[in-house]
Amino acid sequence: MAGNSFGYLFKITTFGESHGKAIGVIIDGCPPNIEIDEEFIQSELDKRKPGQSKITTQRKESDVAQILSGVFEGKSTGTPIAILIPNEDQRSKDYSHIADKYRPSHADYTYQQKYGIRDYRGGGRSSARETAARVAAGAIAKLFLKTQGIEIFAHVSAVGSLISPNLDSTNLADLLTVRESNIVRCADPATANEMIALIDSVRKDGDTIGGQISTIVRNVPVGLGEPVFDKLHADLGKAMLSINAVHGFEYGSGFSGSTMRGSEHNDIFVNEQGAVRTRTNFSGGIQGGISNGMDISFRTAFKPVATIMRDQDTLNEAGDNTTISGKGRHDPCVVSRAVIIVEAMTALVLADHFLRFKAYINEQ
Amino acid sequence: MAGNSFGYLFKITTFGESHGKAIGVIIDGCPPNIEIDEEFIQSELDKRKPGQSKITTQRKESDVAQILSGVFEGKSTGTPIAILIPNEDQRSKDYSHIADKYRPSHADYTYQQKYGIRDYRGGGRSSARETAARVAAGAIAKLFLKTQGIEIFAHVSAVGSLISPNLDSTNLADLLTVRESNIVRCADPATANEMIALIDSVRKDGDTIGGQISTIVRNVPVGLGEPVFDKLHADLGKAMLSINAVHGFEYGSGFSGSTMRGSEHNDIFVNEQGAVRTRTNFSGGIQGGISNGMDISFRTAFKPVATIMRDQDTLNEAGDNTTISGKGRHDPCVVSRAVIIVEAMTALVLADHFLRFKAYINEQ
Amino acid sequence: MAGNSFGYLFKITTFGESHGKAIGVIIDGCPPNIEIDEEFIQSELDKRKPGQSKITTQRKESDVAQILSGVFEGKSTGTPIAILIPNEDQRSKDYSHIADKYRPSHADYTYQQKYGIRDYRGGGRSSARETAARVAAGAIAKLFLKTQGIEIFAHVSAVGSLISPNLDSTNLADLLTVRESNIVRCADPATANEMIALIDSVRKDGDTIGGQISTIVRNVPVGLGEPVFDKLHADLGKAMLSINAVHGFEYGSGFSGSTMRGSEHNDIFVNEQGAVRTRTNFSGGIQGGISNGMDISFRTAFKPVATIMRDQDTLNEAGDNTTISGKGRHDPCVVSRAVIIVEAMTALVLADHFLRFKAYINEQ
Amino acid sequence: MAGNSFGYLFKITTFGESHGKAIGVIIDGCPPNIEIDEEFIQSELDKRKPGQSKITTQRKESDVAQILSGVFEGKSTGTPIAILIPNEDQRSKDYSHIADKYRPSHADYTYQQKYGIRDYRGGGRSSARETAARVAAGAIAKLFLKTQGIEIFAHVSAVGSLISPNLDSTNLADLLTVRESNIVRCADPATANEMIALIDSVRKDGDTIGGQISTIVRNVPVGLGEPVFDKLHADLGKAMLSINAVHGFEYGSGFSGSTMRGSEHNDIFVNEQGAVRTRTNFSGGIQGGISNGMDISFRTAFKPVATIMRDQDTLNEAGDNTTISGKGRHDPCVVSRAVIIVEAMTALVLADHFLRFKAYINEQ
Repeated sequence: MAGNSFGYLFKITTFGESHGKAIGVIIDGCPPNIEIDEEFIQSELDKRKPGQSKITTQRKESDVAQILSGVFEGKSTGTPIAILIPNEDQRSKDYSHIADKYRPSHADYTYQQKYGIRDYRGGGRSSARETAARVAAGAIAKLFLKTQGIEIFAHVSAVGSLISPNLDSTNLADLLTVRESNIVRCADPATANEMIALIDSVRKDGDTIGGQISTIVRNVPVGLGEPVFDKLHADLGKAMLSINAVHGFEYGSGFSGSTMRGSEHNDIFVNEQGAVRTRTNFSGGIQGGISNGMDISFRTAFKPVATIMRDQDTLNEAGDNTTISGKGRHDPCVVSRAVIIVEAMTALVLADHFLRFKAYINEQ
Repeated sequence: MAGNSFGYLFKITTFGESHGKAIGVIIDGCPPNIEIDEEFIQSELDKRKPGQSKITTQRKESDVAQILSGVFEGKSTGTPIAILIPNEDQRSKDYSHIADKYRPSHADYTYQQKYGIRDYRGGGRSSARETAARVAAGAIAKLFLKTQGIEIFAHVSAVGSLISPNLDSTNLADLLTVRESNIVRCADPATANEMIALIDSVRKDGDTIGGQISTIVRNVPVGLGEPVFDKLHADLGKAMLSINAVHGFEYGSGFSGSTMRGSEHNDIFVNEQGAVRTRTNFSGGIQGGISNGMDISFRTAFKPVATIMRDQDTLNEAGDNTTISGKGRHDPCVVSRAVIIVEAMTALVLADHFLRFKAYINEQ
Repeated sequence: MAGNSFGYLFKITTFGESHGKAIGVIIDGCPPNIEIDEEFIQSELDKRKPGQSKITTQRKESDVAQILSGVFEGKSTGTPIAILIPNEDQRSKDYSHIADKYRPSHADYTYQQKYGIRDYRGGGRSSARETAARVAAGAIAKLFLKTQGIEIFAHVSAVGSLISPNLDSTNLADLLTVRESNIVRCADPATANEMIALIDSVRKDGDTIGGQISTIVRNVPVGLGEPVFDKLHADLGKAMLSINAVHGFEYGSGFSGSTMRGSEHNDIFVNEQGAVRTRTNFSGGIQGGISNGMDISFRTAFKPVATIMRDQDTLNEAGDNTTISGKGRHDPCVVSRAVIIVEAMTALVLADHFLRFKAYINEQ
Repeated sequence: MAGNSFGYLFKITTFGESHGKAIGVIIDGCPPNIEIDEEFIQSELDKRKPGQSKITTQRKESDVAQILSGVFEGKSTGTPIAILIPNEDQRSKDYSHIADKYRPSHADYTYQQKYGIRDYRGGGRSSARETAARVAAGAIAKLFLKTQGIEIFAHVSAVGSLISPNLDSTNLADLLTVRESNIVRCADPATANEMIALIDSVRKDGDTIGGQISTIVRNVPVGLGEPVFDKLHADLGKAMLSINAVHGFEYGSGFSGSTMRGSEHNDIFVNEQGAVRTRTNFSGGIQGGISNGMDISFRTAFKPVATIMRDQDTLNEAGDNTTISGKGRHDPCVVSRAVIIVEAMTALVLADHFLRFKAYINEQ
């Protein structure tokens, strides 16, 4: 245990179950004097909350964040920032029929075995509801990174086998506008429409489908990352893999890079008006685990969520065969809601590594 | 910094540069009374060392490990185990011509920017030589896991676009024998031959090529993994991504799972003579970040290493254009040597999570 | 920063300022299936809260704790337990006159320099109010330790130069009754009366006075403590020194042991009905940093708190000479309220070390 | 376990037993570009080594340090620095007679119970020999602190009941000269002579005696320390208490402050040519856990070491009564050798907190 904290210098600890009183987070290590824009935090949470569109769960949560500490006269004090998000729309009765059943591909069985006790309502701590706390913390990280000019942009780049074409990423602010203009949060409008149609059809099928999210981080100073174990991409990978339903992570050339030759894959250094850049960027902006100033790029793969609106065979706690039927309100595909979680985790990694880097800036 | 440790309870810290006096590791947290088989440790190192076959670098290192502490009368004492591996065959002159040049897609540039100083010889700390220390530590972890019956098996499942078929993984010991019978360490003999031919041709081209390594972990007790951030697969992912040249990690259904439906992807629970198993295993043995007793499976993607035997354009530290030619002795493809590193990192993650799990076994 | 967490496996993170919305704590790592007695938690908090007697501050806070997560049907789930304590009786106006002044021997100056910003009201994060969160967390730790039979007892052993005689510590439950029967929490009734009189006279003087708290921990299994740096007494010392106003820590023979000879100081081992005990206990129950089964004993020294009801010279933020007068409601001596904080921190250290010990119990 | 590391950003991990092949340390997080003066490191080790005078053990160890990594062309690279110190003069036969006996007030019993196995020779890992590795690491920390102008000075301020008068600490370099001019390392020559006589007489008695070490840290910038748990004095306390034989720690007014009134104890702020200072310094340079720029002062109490040259009753591992006689070569009083260990641990804490502070320097 003690696995509920993330980060070394910019460190967050989350708490809360799906059907408990509240979820929340403590951010310890946010530098002082950062302007804390509470409307921004709420807008980030609104991008994650359930009930936001026809392709997400119809559960309603307003996810209203309340800051309890660490902010004074609108600025961070350098002391821990606690954010509380009350739970509202739990229908615990929706889960009473499965109190002793193991939902397939959920964490019911593993939690029961590990802890010997579990809050079965809504999946308890294993529910993705916990990620709301991460989004709130990621918003604080983003406010800090903004003071350093670091930009983060993620979007849904695949739903099922529908893959968005590569983006012209010249202007991330423009891409953000396009992304937010459709409910699946894909920055290519044509693909977005296809994705929405696909998800809708999967929903009517009582089924679920997976997808992928692609992320770009821009204006990262050269030097972030702590080899040999806390390499920047290794921490990004762990961050992404800690998100519910994530089964894969790749950065730069990723898995396809494994089929390439070194003569093709190497990124040649060039001098662009005094700045060191690379001609290509298969490195995804990270070399030897340290940022080199080029755009950081990575992709995160999500499996189809396990709660489907169909009967499934399963076992109960006694080991007997039984049936489980999907009751409740669920997402056919989570990626549109997960985009902001991916951005939040990215911000947390970048904020943490920025501070770790800063501890060693040579004064000579 | 302080990024040179890995693990929480079974914790390792490595040191050493490619052309320094020695490399080594301290393992802090190995339980007491584990039989420390020094021949086994050496045999693991021999699987990583350079100069072992025609498809690896011809650099010679005997990588002889010496245990300095933590072992008494052949058993671990519970105190830190330090292992030292002297460096031998450094040809520092091979690197003098590049002291002020940035080798493309290496860490020269990023290290220089981050630290303001770098040991350029052989890549210094960024060299994969450091991984020998990890293999030694992984061997200690394997000796511990053996007392718990946990088995780890990795093999080269792809070189370039040559992909090995799925293995019949009924008996891991047999697969190990097949794997060690060929120099590329693929457990499918036919594919192994094709891989060797491919690597040899790439070598003659003065080029390099990437590949993939697939891993199985068997007999893992139910309950390993510490949600929500230190999920078992998240720590495996970080471990793999920290290895030189790794660009991707996926577990269970991985990236292909993102194209599947929930109705296909869900692993149905079944009772097999009183044991809870799943009919399929797209979960890769991990649900909600916790092991469920099924085989853990994952794949790690390696880019082609950056040192090629061809001239390349680059910059020097002054920002001027220059050329770099490959001199020295290098690997055309690292995966055959990386198999044991992947197993070592896997063992370290499993050992760590086993102890974290053990801290909480309910005595009631 | 990131200095707001304590513990390795049984880990707490606190938040909250004196005049913010609330204070609170997340306990990450409490084992599952521990009965969480909410009345007990509240009774512990009641021993710390202000306004409890004539010798403490007359500020009123009900310090009502609310559990937000981590408990299901009265038992810990193994997931993070969050406890919230709303702030009530802040009189922020009491502090407006000192917003830009540095109160002598308070943390105003150092916080201002370190963070560049501070919540001046009530001392912000530097206020001892934060310790209420620790007491709540310590209560959870005590509930866990109770399942292991470990007992903790602390009492006020000195106020100023008034020193309580050594206790007959045969029955800690009896001592607890005596302690709670007087408002200064000294387990010797005669000394208690003298202490109360002394504190009252100091209060009338508009001054403050220091004191000491002595602690016993009983029934600790042999083997707790993680040399060489996380020795049990070293973690106890850090825990005590982190409490506001603490200036000294000693265990076993303490500072007086430095005047003794080895022939006097050595604790001779004896066999008492098969149990290994020592004839004397200058070791304070800890040898080589590891518990040996004898009572652990230590003493914590508190300086007189800095807020006195007299005018004092000081500087303001501009560096100008000014005067500060004590306004508000303050403690003449904090030790009667600090007893429960000392017990709480002791419980947190013992709980943490118990789990660290348990991770390595040899199964052979 | 995993208790063999110290520090958060400037982190050390030590290894090694008294009669193993070697002891050593990895320093992870030393900033790059610090000049590493190997002669200085050796001179620090020489201040700790046995056999240095008639009032220490006559065991001979040359304690020659060898740097294996992390230094290039005389400067730190920012990568881990490993230092190895081979063991030489072990007389393992001296310990064979006690292999199964528990030496009184040593760690034999607790180590045996905790680990189920122990290297009995010379106390194994529990031996103070391990502190040589700390001194080497502390030397690296001192070299770093020197670049920041931070000075550390410790000396023996008491042996038994012989207490040195307060020093005129105007010039620490002068005090260092005086301290090194006598074999007990007391900076008051008259007291030094008495101490040497006392220790010599204790030695002839076949006994041991305790003592105290007082430390000053000067030129610490304002702002070091991470409340609420990693307060600067709390980390100093843990550091000191981790040293073998330490039983007490106090800073500033220490235990005597507990007898004082607030009106006496408060340190009044004054403006000295634009610098904020305090008129008195009962705070020991730390307020609210954060350095305020005044001298940091603290005292560490050492018990008499447990190995005496007399027969003692004890138990063996079977629980039977037996006798142990002191054989071998031992210290009558360790404080003259411990001064450099105290300085080393102080340097490690200051270096670590300096980097933690630096991570948050406000760029605004």
